[in-house]
Amino acid sequence: MSHEIKICLEPVGFVKTDAVGHEVRDKKVISEIVFREELTEALEGIEEFSHLFILFWLNKISDQSRKIMKVHPRGRNDMPLLGIFATRTPHRTNPIGLTRVKLLNVEGNVITVQGLDAFDCTPVLDIKPFDSWDTAADFKVPEWWLKLEKERTNKKE
Amino acid sequence: MSHEIKICLEPVGFVKTDAVGHEVRDKKVISEIVFREELTEALEGIEEFSHLFILFWLNKISDQSRKIMKVHPRGRNDMPLLGIFATRTPHRTNPIGLTRVKLLNVEGNVITVQGLDAFDCTPVLDIKPFDSWDTAADFKVPEWWLKLEKERTNKKE
Repeated sequence: MSHEIKICLEPVGFVKTDAVGHEVRDKKVISEIVFREELTEALEGIEEFSHLFILFWLNKISDQSRKIMKVHPRGRNDMPLLGIFATRTPHRTNPIGLTRVKLLNVEGNVITVQGLDAFDCTPVLDIKPFDSWDTAADFKVPEWWLKLEKERTNKKE
Repeated sequence: MSHEIKICLEPVGFVKTDAVGHEVRDKKVISEIVFREELTEALEGIEEFSHLFILFWLNKISDQSRKIMKVHPRGRNDMPLLGIFATRTPHRTNPIGLTRVKLLNVEGNVITVQGLDAFDCTPVLDIKPFDSWDTAADFKVPEWWLKLEKERTNKKE
């Protein structure tokens, strides 16, 4: 099996948002995705779904960062040192972001979504409608994940 | 905003499965993902999650198919003609597959998963742990999706 496969992509559109820095991680943030105009008709029918997956290119990640093998979640030393595939860190071999968002509006080549943790001008690679095969009723996450999540929720209250 | 961004990826591993043709769509199918050996440590800690997302490259999709704008879901003429972004068709501008799977085992650079609808030798681009941000309690899908899903369930019974 050869690893010498060339995979080349071009963005289908770009993120437009006023949120900067950590603000993008707020699940209330509303962003637009502006698609390449020639792809407008490829959006037809998407308005019937309430949620989407957005796949985007983490274009701030350097080639050097793509070689990182292990991280502390959120860069916190009180968290275990874990393989990058066991986390959602942006420092990944192939830095593709994946976020479930709420679809708010579709107008021409622009869709408006809520909960996209991507910076302004981020290249979008693909979007997919969210369906019941994407959910999981009884899923398990590690202790460290639950701890981070609890802190996040407490901070908001 | 320039669209002239070059995005280049290389596989992190490959799918290994005995399932062929339509068999891969059976959610009971068990596959392996064999990672590049140098990425073995990047898997550390993943065993604590029960479910993962697998992002893979749909390498059977031709350059011509990447220009398709609209499809009938499952190629069925009794289904509406929809923009590709409103479906999970493999005929996409950037043919990246996304499937939630159950993680069964981790051993060295090989993980065993259930429910991956990818053919043998499919290049894997990334894997991500599944967490509660990926779920959605009240999501809406179109009538055509419900109809297809009902047929699929009936067939199994």
